[in-house]
Amino acid sequence: MKSDLDRLMQEKNIDAIVVTGPAQHNPAMYYMTGGGHLTSADCIKARGNDAVLFYNPMERDEAAATGLRTKNLNDYNRVQLLKQAGGDVSGALALRYQQMLDEVGIAGGRIAIYGKMDIGAGYAVFAALQKAMPDLEIVPETERDSLMLQAMATKDETEIAHIRQMGQITTEVVGRVAEFLTLQKAKNNILTQPNGQPWTIGDVKRRINLWLAELGAENPEGTIFAIGHDAGVPHSTGKASDLLRLGQSIVFDIFPCQAGGGYYYDFTRTWCLGYAPDAVQALYDDVFAVYQQVMGELKVNTPFSHYQERTCELFEARKHPTICLNSNLQEGYVHSLGHGLGLHVHERPWSGSTATKEDIFAPGVVVTIEPGLYYPEKGMGCRLEDTVWVPPDGEMEILADFPLDLVIPIKG
Amino acid sequence: MKSDLDRLMQEKNIDAIVVTGPAQHNPAMYYMTGGGHLTSADCIKARGNDAVLFYNPMERDEAAATGLRTKNLNDYNRVQLLKQAGGDVSGALALRYQQMLDEVGIAGGRIAIYGKMDIGAGYAVFAALQKAMPDLEIVPETERDSLMLQAMATKDETEIAHIRQMGQITTEVVGRVAEFLTLQKAKNNILTQPNGQPWTIGDVKRRINLWLAELGAENPEGTIFAIGHDAGVPHSTGKASDLLRLGQSIVFDIFPCQAGGGYYYDFTRTWCLGYAPDAVQALYDDVFAVYQQVMGELKVNTPFSHYQERTCELFEARKHPTICLNSNLQEGYVHSLGHGLGLHVHERPWSGSTATKEDIFAPGVVVTIEPGLYYPEKGMGCRLEDTVWVPPDGEMEILADFPLDLVIPIKG
Repeated sequence: MKSDLDRLMQEKNIDAIVVTGPAQHNPAMYYMTGGGHLTSADCIKARGNDAVLFYNPMERDEAAATGLRTKNLNDYNRVQLLKQAGGDVSGALALRYQQMLDEVGIAGGRIAIYGKMDIGAGYAVFAALQKAMPDLEIVPETERDSLMLQAMATKDETEIAHIRQMGQITTEVVGRVAEFLTLQKAKNNILTQPNGQPWTIGDVKRRINLWLAELGAENPEGTIFAIGHDAGVPHSTGKASDLLRLGQSIVFDIFPCQAGGGYYYDFTRTWCLGYAPDAVQALYDDVFAVYQQVMGELKVNTPFSHYQERTCELFEARKHPTICLNSNLQEGYVHSLGHGLGLHVHERPWSGSTATKEDIFAPGVVVTIEPGLYYPEKGMGCRLEDTVWVPPDGEMEILADFPLDLVIPIKG
Repeated sequence: MKSDLDRLMQEKNIDAIVVTGPAQHNPAMYYMTGGGHLTSADCIKARGNDAVLFYNPMERDEAAATGLRTKNLNDYNRVQLLKQAGGDVSGALALRYQQMLDEVGIAGGRIAIYGKMDIGAGYAVFAALQKAMPDLEIVPETERDSLMLQAMATKDETEIAHIRQMGQITTEVVGRVAEFLTLQKAKNNILTQPNGQPWTIGDVKRRINLWLAELGAENPEGTIFAIGHDAGVPHSTGKASDLLRLGQSIVFDIFPCQAGGGYYYDFTRTWCLGYAPDAVQALYDDVFAVYQQVMGELKVNTPFSHYQERTCELFEARKHPTICLNSNLQEGYVHSLGHGLGLHVHERPWSGSTATKEDIFAPGVVVTIEPGLYYPEKGMGCRLEDTVWVPPDGEMEILADFPLDLVIPIKG
C-alpha cells in the first residue's frame, strides 16, 4: 500500500519516483493525489520525504485540495528553459525536470518514472533528461512489474471501501439487467419489444451505461455482453446488432470504475435466456464446479500461479484443453485465472505466465477469480468471475455477492 | 487527415510510425483502428504501405473488425525472446518490436512512436530497442507537435459527422440542465428542493452524467460547473457541495466524448440564476462583445495565434489585464483563445504561446473559440465557448447552436 512506498524504494534502491500526467484515468497520479481535475501535473517523491506536486496555476485550487506540498510550474521560466535547450521543447522539459528534481534534493542516483503519457513525447523528454543528467539512472521497469504496482497490489481500508462500493454498484446494475431481461417477451425464441422489434445487445448496453451513470460510476473500458459464438471468444465484447436468442450462452463481464477514474470492480456471469440446452448446461456445470473448488481452496500467502495450475488440472480432468498445455490455445481454458484489481482493471498480483514468486495472496490484495471455457466453433462460452479481498486476517471475502445462476427465466 | 499520413511521413522523412496501447481512450490507436475493444495492440505503418495491426489472439475478432491487415502477437515466441534478452522483459519486448518492424520491411531509418502508455515501462522498451537497433532513429516529437497531431488537425467528413453528433448530444444535455434549473424554486436566494433541502452542484453533475449516458456519450474528463469564486479559476471544476445561489456567475464547461473513447465536443456557457448583478452583467457583456467580434473576424488560413493577440487587444481596450502582457496572470484574460478538438479534447491547432506558424485555420480544422474573464477575488468569472469547423469552402460553422444568454430565470 501507499505507506509501503518508502520501504519499497529502500529495497529497490530507488532515490525518487516521478509521476506525470493528469490525475484522472491515470492510476499512478490518482494514487499520489487522490484524483481531481488536474489535467497535467508532475508529482515527485524523494525517498523518505513527502511528495511534491508541481501544478499548472490554472489548477491551483485543485492542486491545493490534494493536501500535498505544491509548487507552481510557472515558477520555472519556460522562455529561459527553451533558450537554454536551444529551442528544443523536449530538451526544455528535461531541464525543467532537472530543476524539479533539484527542488526535492535529487542531483543523480536512481529514479523510477510513472504515469500514462504519449510514449513518443515521453521518450523524447526522458532521453533528453538522461543526456542532461548522466549521473541519473532511469530504472527500467515493466508495465506488469514495477515498484508502483507492488505498492498498489495491497490495499488499505479506504481503498477497500471504494472497491466494495463499486462492487455494490456493479451488482446492482447486473441485477437490473437480469430483471429487465426476465420481464421481456420471447417471439420465435428471440426477446422482443412490445412494438414487435427485437431487442439487441446494443439496447442492453445502453441501459447498462445509463444505470452505471445513475449510480455514479463510469464505464471507460466498455462492457462485454457477448452471445453465442462471441461468448466463445474471451475478449469479444458482443455486437451491438446481435439479437437476444433464447438458449444461447451470454458472457456478461462488467468492469466499471468510480467517476473521475478511480477504483474498478470486475464481475462476470454467464446467462442463458429462457432455458439452457444440454451442451451449454454441461459447459456451465464444469466452470461452476471449478469455480467452487478453486474458491474453496484459496489460502493467504499462496502464489496466485498455484491456482492457475490447479484450475488447468481441474479442467483437464474434465477433458478440456488448457493453456497450461498449449500457450496458443483458442478453445477450452484459454486464459489466466485472474488478476489484481484497483486503480487499474488489471494489475498485480498476476496469475498467468508472467506471474513471479512475488505474485502471492498477501494480506491486502484484491484479485479476480474467473475460470472460463470457450468453444467458439460450437457457438458457446462460459465464465464466472468474482472479486475477492484477502483481509489482514486472511479470510477471503467476495466483495459483492450475486447469484451464480445460469438460466434467466423469461416471464414477459 | 488520415489520408495525409504518407505525405507527412515523406515531408518529415519518417520511414514508419509505431502506435501502441489500447484502442479505447488512446487517440493515436483509435485513429489507426477506428476504436473497438482492443486492450493492448501495436499498429505499424511503413511509409507508402498499409498499416499492420499486431493483436492479442483473445481479441482476434475485434482486430479483424478494424479491416486492417492483422498479425497475431502470439506468432512471436515469448519464451524464446525472453531467453534471447537474457530474461529482461523490456528487452524481450524490444526484440519483438525489432521483428515486427522487420515484418513491415523496416531494418533501420527514422521511426516515430505514438500511443498512451505507462512512461516508465515505455521508456525502458524503446531505450532497449534503440540499443538493439543502433541504425534506428526514434524521432523526438512533443505532445503538442507531432506528425500524428498534424494529420489529426484536419478532419474528413466522417470525423465531422462524429463531432457534430457529439455537439448535438452536448447541447441537448445543456438544454436539459437549463430547463431543470429554471423549474426549481428559490428560497433565501438558494435553489431548493421540494423537501426543503438545497440543490447542490453535485446534484447537477449527477444529472449531467446521467443524461450524457442516456444519449450515448462518455464523460471521462468530468464537467466544470463552478460558481462564484470557483467560476473565477478557469480549471476549477466546482465543489460538489456548493449551493446554487442566485445572482452568482456559473461557468458551465462540458466536454464529453463518444462512448469507447472517440471524438469530443467542447462547449461553455456562463449562467446567472434568477438575475445578474451589475458587476456580473458587465463582465459578461465584455466577454460577449469580444466573442462576437472575434467570431466575426475568423478567416480561413489565418494563424490561430493572430486571434489570440486580437482577443488580448480587445480585452485590453476594455481595461482588463491579459496574458499577452503578463504570462503569469491570474486575473483578467488568463488563457489562450482556444484549441483544436477531435480524438483529444485539446489538440492542434494551438492558439497560445506554444502555437507555431503551422497552427492555422486550414480547411478541415475544428477549433474551440473560448474567450473568458476571471476575477476570483471578486467571486466571478465568465467564459463563452463554441466549437467551430472550417469546411473546405472556408465558411466557418459552429457545429452546434445554443443560445448565449446569461440569465436563467427561476420559474419554479
